[in-house]
Amino acid sequence: MVTVRDVAARAGVSPRTVSNVVNEHPHVSAETRRRVELAISETGYRPNLTARSLRQGRSGLIGLVVPEVDVPYFAELTRAFIDVLGEEYTLVVDQTDGRPERERDVVFHRGRAGLFDGLILNPLQLGADELARRGPGTPLVLIGEQVTSELFDHVVIDNVEAAREAVRHLTSQGRRRIAVVGGERESWTHTTMLRAQGYREALEEAGLPYRDGLDARTGALHRADGARAMAHLLSSGERPDAVFCLNDLVALGALRTLATAGVRVPDDVAVVGFDDVEDGRFSTPTLTTVAPDKAQIARLAVERLRLRMAGDTSPGATIVADHRLVVRESTAGPARAEQERRRRPPPS
Amino acid sequence: MVTVRDVAARAGVSPRTVSNVVNEHPHVSAETRRRVELAISETGYRPNLTARSLRQGRSGLIGLVVPEVDVPYFAELTRAFIDVLGEEYTLVVDQTDGRPERERDVVFHRGRAGLFDGLILNPLQLGADELARRGPGTPLVLIGEQVTSELFDHVVIDNVEAAREAVRHLTSQGRRRIAVVGGERESWTHTTMLRAQGYREALEEAGLPYRDGLDARTGALHRADGARAMAHLLSSGERPDAVFCLNDLVALGALRTLATAGVRVPDDVAVVGFDDVEDGRFSTPTLTTVAPDKAQIARLAVERLRLRMAGDTSPGATIVADHRLVVRESTAGPARAEQERRRRPPPS
Repeated sequence: MVTVRDVAARAGVSPRTVSNVVNEHPHVSAETRRRVELAISETGYRPNLTARSLRQGRSGLIGLVVPEVDVPYFAELTRAFIDVLGEEYTLVVDQTDGRPERERDVVFHRGRAGLFDGLILNPLQLGADELARRGPGTPLVLIGEQVTSELFDHVVIDNVEAAREAVRHLTSQGRRRIAVVGGERESWTHTTMLRAQGYREALEEAGLPYRDGLDARTGALHRADGARAMAHLLSSGERPDAVFCLNDLVALGALRTLATAGVRVPDDVAVVGFDDVEDGRFSTPTLTTVAPDKAQIARLAVERLRLRMAGDTSPGATIVADHRLVVRESTAGPARAEQERRRRPPPS
Repeated sequence: MVTVRDVAARAGVSPRTVSNVVNEHPHVSAETRRRVELAISETGYRPNLTARSLRQGRSGLIGLVVPEVDVPYFAELTRAFIDVLGEEYTLVVDQTDGRPERERDVVFHRGRAGLFDGLILNPLQLGADELARRGPGTPLVLIGEQVTSELFDHVVIDNVEAAREAVRHLTSQGRRRIAVVGGERESWTHTTMLRAQGYREALEEAGLPYRDGLDARTGALHRADGARAMAHLLSSGERPDAVFCLNDLVALGALRTLATAGVRVPDDVAVVGFDDVEDGRFSTPTLTTVAPDKAQIARLAVERLRLRMAGDTSPGATIVADHRLVVRESTAGPARAEQERRRRPPPS
């Protein structure tokens, strides 16, 4: 095992100087730093950074814990967090697959959570009762799903209102047979329940009945689920003139099925998604969607996390980030969508 | 500061038993475990996991370091690694943005790399000379870009051959004006250089000249770059009858421009991508692409990493993972693509 003394001897400096280089102390001359780094390479010395983080009381790591890293919404949100954290912290991403034991692991500091200075968690399954059992520990901020808990800061968007706006956009176009697609009816994620609630409220506002045959929540929230649910809707007697999809992936899957079936979008069926992922800006047709302000979500969550890391122990706050409806070709057609694009200010 | 003794007293067990629960020792009764976990929650005890990882000599963390977490190829690759690692290791994802100092940070154990038991790195900028300066340290396996170095295990695909197959597919259809799109001509990533090389070799095989006006490598590798480059090609005098895109995102951007311009795909222009990301399976038209075997890449990289973590010090090996051309509508049209799909075995 190579020690700091071996490196010091080889570089012709004191062990203290080696330690200064390893700990990125600013007052080391470039020449000394170079000599020490060379000696580190040559000896294969491995500075014990775990020990260092113990001494300094911080690791410089922020953990972002999301259900699925390969879902574009979470990938884009991850990018937003990296942009907000800048050079000060390294973001490491972990995923739970929405499994309650993995979420519990994060919340209760089992597993490896103790390595992080702060945690941002998007829970799918943990409820307020379980969260309430957590004592003090690594500062934790929640994002995404609405969990009613005063114990943690929580950054959300108003999913019910956002869904209502999306469906209102369809009713205002004279659409009367509006289907809802994505996720299960007995959903285990709170978000899809809230969005489905907004759908029902918007139907009610417009005096439209909720129709069981137009409720195609029969799967998960990936492209293949949207494609399948749309095929099912087309083959059923209850053919819709519009589809509200509970996220963009489902909408992109639905668009694919409609294209294969030769159904014209938006002429025969209008389609709305939710999340504003990049795919929907380049799909054919481009996708009308609800855009949560991802940069703002990241900024607000990191602001709260910094306060908590600095020792703030005030009660948890629920903070509502902005969203807006982005109208594109899948509801407006090519010409109208272009008008909308020119009229709207660019996203902040 | 709550100590293990406080927890033990509250739970009515020995400190040793608390430690067994925290360290997930199997021989603890469910009832005792429950009592200790309750006491941990109630006291807010935070087991010092950093210290634990020091004692055990392992953190249980594998770091995956990629250029961009929000690029679908890397998101899907991340998922493949998570699937391969299973329960034994937690994968944490870090991104370099392709910046050399961030890559160096990972390779030379500066920053926080010492926290990981093993590292998988997709370098964009580090060359063999820099890698050669690294001494022993956290086991490291390279993926993605071809760096000629015998110091590290490296899992790659044959990018030249794969690109050649993709372009051969176009020449075999009688396409004669085949453009190349994506990335810069003076590329800073080795991968795009290799793919462009395969493009030129396939042209040569078919007796087609390389035409400067059909080389639209004028940007990065995102959707917007593909859309812009395609618009440029359409407005130039050198109108192509096929486009080889250096990745799928670029191809999806190109498809968007073609749709807006009313150009029929594949009738007027055929399009091929590279990466086989999910978007291209649901786009309209669906995208012909080169599919690297992502599951195999992850499996091979983790196999090598396990050997290294177990102390294997044999010279680094370059391991070539499989790829295949997946023919879809963007070159074959709806009917032919369906035939191809039926003829081909499903992906392993």
